[in-house]
Amino acid sequence: MPHGYTHTAVVRAEGHLIDSKILNTIFDIVIERGGAFEVVDFDIGRTNDDFSRVTLKVSAESPPRLQRLLEDLMPFGCHAAEERDAVIRTADRDGSVPDDFYSTTNMRTHVRVGGRWIEVQGQRMDAVIVLDGEQAICRKLREIRVGDRVVCGVQGLRVSPEFRERDRADFAFMSNEISSERRVEASVGRIAALMRETRARGRRIVFVAGPVVVHTGGTEYFSQLVRGGWVDVVLAGNALAVHDAELAMFATSLGVDQAGVPVRGGHRHHMRAINAINRAGGIRSAVESGVLKTGVMVECVRAGVEFVLAGSIRDDGPIVDTLTDIIEAQDRYAAALSSAGLVIMLSTMLHGIGVGNMLPAWIPVVCVDINPAVVTKLADRGSSQTIGVVTDVGLFLHQLARQVT
Amino acid sequence: MPHGYTHTAVVRAEGHLIDSKILNTIFDIVIERGGAFEVVDFDIGRTNDDFSRVTLKVSAESPPRLQRLLEDLMPFGCHAAEERDAVIRTADRDGSVPDDFYSTTNMRTHVRVGGRWIEVQGQRMDAVIVLDGEQAICRKLREIRVGDRVVCGVQGLRVSPEFRERDRADFAFMSNEISSERRVEASVGRIAALMRETRARGRRIVFVAGPVVVHTGGTEYFSQLVRGGWVDVVLAGNALAVHDAELAMFATSLGVDQAGVPVRGGHRHHMRAINAINRAGGIRSAVESGVLKTGVMVECVRAGVEFVLAGSIRDDGPIVDTLTDIIEAQDRYAAALSSAGLVIMLSTMLHGIGVGNMLPAWIPVVCVDINPAVVTKLADRGSSQTIGVVTDVGLFLHQLARQVT
Amino acid sequence: MPHGYTHTAVVRAEGHLIDSKILNTIFDIVIERGGAFEVVDFDIGRTNDDFSRVTLKVSAESPPRLQRLLEDLMPFGCHAAEERDAVIRTADRDGSVPDDFYSTTNMRTHVRVGGRWIEVQGQRMDAVIVLDGEQAICRKLREIRVGDRVVCGVQGLRVSPEFRERDRADFAFMSNEISSERRVEASVGRIAALMRETRARGRRIVFVAGPVVVHTGGTEYFSQLVRGGWVDVVLAGNALAVHDAELAMFATSLGVDQAGVPVRGGHRHHMRAINAINRAGGIRSAVESGVLKTGVMVECVRAGVEFVLAGSIRDDGPIVDTLTDIIEAQDRYAAALSSAGLVIMLSTMLHGIGVGNMLPAWIPVVCVDINPAVVTKLADRGSSQTIGVVTDVGLFLHQLARQVT
Amino acid sequence: MPHGYTHTAVVRAEGHLIDSKILNTIFDIVIERGGAFEVVDFDIGRTNDDFSRVTLKVSAESPPRLQRLLEDLMPFGCHAAEERDAVIRTADRDGSVPDDFYSTTNMRTHVRVGGRWIEVQGQRMDAVIVLDGEQAICRKLREIRVGDRVVCGVQGLRVSPEFRERDRADFAFMSNEISSERRVEASVGRIAALMRETRARGRRIVFVAGPVVVHTGGTEYFSQLVRGGWVDVVLAGNALAVHDAELAMFATSLGVDQAGVPVRGGHRHHMRAINAINRAGGIRSAVESGVLKTGVMVECVRAGVEFVLAGSIRDDGPIVDTLTDIIEAQDRYAAALSSAGLVIMLSTMLHGIGVGNMLPAWIPVVCVDINPAVVTKLADRGSSQTIGVVTDVGLFLHQLARQVT
Repeated sequence: MPHGYTHTAVVRAEGHLIDSKILNTIFDIVIERGGAFEVVDFDIGRTNDDFSRVTLKVSAESPPRLQRLLEDLMPFGCHAAEERDAVIRTADRDGSVPDDFYSTTNMRTHVRVGGRWIEVQGQRMDAVIVLDGEQAICRKLREIRVGDRVVCGVQGLRVSPEFRERDRADFAFMSNEISSERRVEASVGRIAALMRETRARGRRIVFVAGPVVVHTGGTEYFSQLVRGGWVDVVLAGNALAVHDAELAMFATSLGVDQAGVPVRGGHRHHMRAINAINRAGGIRSAVESGVLKTGVMVECVRAGVEFVLAGSIRDDGPIVDTLTDIIEAQDRYAAALSSAGLVIMLSTMLHGIGVGNMLPAWIPVVCVDINPAVVTKLADRGSSQTIGVVTDVGLFLHQLARQVT
Repeated sequence: MPHGYTHTAVVRAEGHLIDSKILNTIFDIVIERGGAFEVVDFDIGRTNDDFSRVTLKVSAESPPRLQRLLEDLMPFGCHAAEERDAVIRTADRDGSVPDDFYSTTNMRTHVRVGGRWIEVQGQRMDAVIVLDGEQAICRKLREIRVGDRVVCGVQGLRVSPEFRERDRADFAFMSNEISSERRVEASVGRIAALMRETRARGRRIVFVAGPVVVHTGGTEYFSQLVRGGWVDVVLAGNALAVHDAELAMFATSLGVDQAGVPVRGGHRHHMRAINAINRAGGIRSAVESGVLKTGVMVECVRAGVEFVLAGSIRDDGPIVDTLTDIIEAQDRYAAALSSAGLVIMLSTMLHGIGVGNMLPAWIPVVCVDINPAVVTKLADRGSSQTIGVVTDVGLFLHQLARQVT
Repeated sequence: MPHGYTHTAVVRAEGHLIDSKILNTIFDIVIERGGAFEVVDFDIGRTNDDFSRVTLKVSAESPPRLQRLLEDLMPFGCHAAEERDAVIRTADRDGSVPDDFYSTTNMRTHVRVGGRWIEVQGQRMDAVIVLDGEQAICRKLREIRVGDRVVCGVQGLRVSPEFRERDRADFAFMSNEISSERRVEASVGRIAALMRETRARGRRIVFVAGPVVVHTGGTEYFSQLVRGGWVDVVLAGNALAVHDAELAMFATSLGVDQAGVPVRGGHRHHMRAINAINRAGGIRSAVESGVLKTGVMVECVRAGVEFVLAGSIRDDGPIVDTLTDIIEAQDRYAAALSSAGLVIMLSTMLHGIGVGNMLPAWIPVVCVDINPAVVTKLADRGSSQTIGVVTDVGLFLHQLARQVT
Repeated sequence: MPHGYTHTAVVRAEGHLIDSKILNTIFDIVIERGGAFEVVDFDIGRTNDDFSRVTLKVSAESPPRLQRLLEDLMPFGCHAAEERDAVIRTADRDGSVPDDFYSTTNMRTHVRVGGRWIEVQGQRMDAVIVLDGEQAICRKLREIRVGDRVVCGVQGLRVSPEFRERDRADFAFMSNEISSERRVEASVGRIAALMRETRARGRRIVFVAGPVVVHTGGTEYFSQLVRGGWVDVVLAGNALAVHDAELAMFATSLGVDQAGVPVRGGHRHHMRAINAINRAGGIRSAVESGVLKTGVMVECVRAGVEFVLAGSIRDDGPIVDTLTDIIEAQDRYAAALSSAGLVIMLSTMLHGIGVGNMLPAWIPVVCVDINPAVVTKLADRGSSQTIGVVTDVGLFLHQLARQVT
């Protein structure tokens, strides 16, 4: 150990440490944080299927730095060689926690209580772990109540990163290389396969969709997917429903007709659509009363597909179905995602990031957008389970409807 | 008139019809909508300062088509040659209006009631005009109550488009050509001049700011602007305040330090910042109690600058200052904008669109973003009062702080 | 006229001055250049089909400023009210011309010689007009030889801007609004119609294609177009041929296989392809000898489609078919374009700009790219004849092959 | 070994295998290529400074597949455990080589001849290794002559990948994370440090510059860098020189003046500039005769800075200094880069890719562009020596001139 690095801890990690670049990341973190490391023991997996195991002595200049270092290593599967129970503190006021609370990642986490390792429920990013009887549960800061027993520090915690499985058929595909210079038809084939597999496993396929689905001519193809039973949940905002209704009622979206010709004055159509839906008492009533006859929302109502519309500062109207409180919207989104087996995001950065925050790392996510920067941002979840496709959303849905059905 | 175009109306428009491409647009609309036109009279302004005047006979195949055509021509200043009072109908339920309601543009509008032309108050896009005693006021659909007297159809309405003033110093600058291949220093000089002019006129300068201000190193320069009295209002979301606090407390933003080095594990910092602010009871208390010592929000609190934080589906936390109901957030934004003389949007499409929806066309708007598509979208308000700058926001603020002070 | 604007000229213009925003632009230019104008006479077209006519007195502070102003007004159809012959000077050295030479636009131009107006041949941008016997011809600077008779100044010149024809089926479509939020299928339908119309008129359809055609899986669809007789000329660079051959020989392009999986080490494949083609003695020999069996180039050779490959600084190899001198490449491109009736550019800014420089304004151009900035740049030719489509090139070709055949 | 993987070889690699993710990549390649591996021996570096060493048994289904696998592993430092001389074949015709030639990477390479390992000279990508007496030299395909002794296959070759050095000051900075949401000032500081260091080491600083340098107002700042001795070579195209001259002679670039105001008609200025330079006989003569008085090229001539202008298909003119043959241009670029210690690319994808192809992996490269896709493409050289900065080029040069001087 270099001179001055007098505070030391021994940590262990195991898994596909090389494949998933985890060992590399662990080393990087130690050095970046001004620490030092020494490999006490390394047992490399002999073949592609074998796990590797590492024992590492890490050291830092002071106890707080060492503590912070250990905290930073946790998401990569490093845990103290010596096992101890987690430190539990009691919340002293609603909506906040002790300063040294443990803030979760989206990866599978275990906490040691009374000598037993228990798996944390409702895993998601940026949450607090609360002990509730025998259970450990992810709670959001705002859900904390006085007296809640909160996990603090990093002792007694173990995080299991998702490992890239090199043998999976979709291994190379699940890369984070985002490029518009790629063949989209091949990607669609793999996504269709994922959809079939998800349905076969009895899990839900959740679409997160922006109004670009409508503008790019995807309505008919998305409707086919709904009718075919490929859509279990639609998470969206006010705009998707409004532009979908505008197209149904006025044959324009954002004032542009389906032949791509801008209809000047068409900007008013969406306000008329909002008024018509609200007069009817909401989307379901509008469908029942015949105000709305075609479109994505109509198909959802008919097929019994759950939809949740979250409000935003830029909403016109909004229609009465839109949840105007974002806390309620987040809770409803999270509930709708609880049995998700696959999430497909179509051209909506806002709702896509919202959904990404709620998902555990092991749920595969597909992000489709014509802007590579959006795909990169959404696909970057510290997870190998993400597929980014840079392409035209309307043409993508056309291809997907053809390949899946 | 071509055969079959039997339904006819005579409309008039006046102003800088050529300069502002309004005459061109009027002709386009008639043809696009399947109508026909005949110029009854055209009096062109002889010099650059003179107005032009046109009288136009427009015709269509059926009365509803003619009606829709006239409606579409209104935002471009066309009004019936023959003056009549507006049609007023009574709202029969809260939150919705008769189907043929007039949906506003963001341009100055007059309505004729009892033979008198009165100017509509609170002009904004996508609103309903309600008569309240002697006044005509823009109301949002959701604000409508049973019994409200609502302007319907297009009769008795007159819209005054903003004309490009070709002699203004900033005429050519106010173009809608958006390009990253432009000299930014020159643009900054003009924006600084606009800021001085706005302050001299006693109007408020409103900044709409995203967290990219913090990530790109703009904190110090934005703080200088606040201290210099150049910022009257900050409209933002939860993320600006959170990342600003993260930078103040942990010297990182989004887990990246100010030297541009990603600090792995830094992702937790923003949750600690949220918890610390909420424990303190909000931003003001955090500033007073010394939890927050530097940053944009601290400067705002110290300088008495109003700030409104609107919630969104992707928020972590949020901090207690964030308005979680988007209706309330929209109302607070709109109120803060009521005396705005200049609006500067810094890298936030979400809040930028929200603000754009609320503004009358005559308030100048500056949009700064490194992504040309965002600038194009925000700058496209059907107004000549918009300046788009495609550049790095941190460097932009550096230049602006230097040039304005 | 304002004080000091003592130097004056009278100019005239006629055509669809309002529709094409030409009158607006003329006024803008006068003011931007610090001049003043007075409308002497304006005769507006009464209906959509009628031409408008304007006579304008323009003035400036000095004769050179007035001269420059008149020069700037020329591309918008303004010509001196008083007709005089063009000024002709003789080139005194090869490759350069007198300082006051007239530099062409891409619009139809007439020059007055001996009292007669003659149309300039080989119209293109940035050329010099040379009198050759009875003819006036566009020549590039580098083609000028001592003794050439060169048109100088702006006297005796008349430019006819392309007018937007508001009644054309594709009127609204031919707009310069570029957006990725549009329905591509509708655009493809219109492009297919243009292709049919071009073929019916006996003109050539020229494709300008980048290697992205291959990377995005467009090879098979482009091959279908070639086999169907929809491609008369292919203008490209070394990379298209190399990656096409790489795909044919190694089933990868840029080292990525057609299932979208990167093949590490695949980077060498393109060098092997180059070596194989060059060993065979070029593309034609490689096709004849069976070295190349499939792909775009094979189809071109078999169908007798002309192709020209222009070299660039970034070329690997290049293959022997690539023209390494850019002067020769430009000349060969220009020759291939001489009977073009439609030009379709697929994801290649470099060659697209090169081709755009060579075309007269009246040849319609379609630009397809997934990056909106590229489409904007290519589509911006000061012509109404351009269609920009922001989409995935592979999926676009798939749609096009389906719709055209 | 799995069943059927009967063809086997033993390879070795050593270095910072974990840090540089090389071990991970090696494993990936074996699996992707349908092979299998078994770790015979792995010795991990105990501390950050220590090398790791691995011995690997790789196997494949057939000898050609095994051969291709070994070839693919070479760029990552894998070499046969058993040492043998390289296979040399003789070229049988000019400009091409035997089918199984070894195509180089940009990494340091040794070849074993007569039992001795000799380092390859002139290392660059996509070249052929030719033995010339005692030397091994990179040659381009087109430079091959009948009788040249060419290295074939992968036997007797050793490639040394560049290792990331985790302790370097710029370690984290040299990441390949490209984002516009970063603080540019910090990046500029590090680039300035690299420039000082390069100068101190007596190596040349090469700028590859596009005309955007001029359009974004960078001329004055780039001139300051030239005058300060921070620029040893400028590699560019015709357009940089033309727009630089246009700015000097007409105060516009691309017809836009330095206040950002488009000057209509300004499109002709660049043709006048070309004519003026060519009349003068080229840039140097134009500077000497006073035709050109200011600008980047003037500063280069005065400071004796070497510049090479490469032609392209889109060139206007070109000016006589532009090399119209791309073979000659590539050779001149390559010669100018021969003693480069640092390469800075400013907004020119075309020339940037050209230069990237010529450089060995160990020369650090800085890429600056406002478009993240360009930065990603240029920075992706399979080397850790690249810095990507997404920002405004004009403001970047302003910052750089301030920080370096």
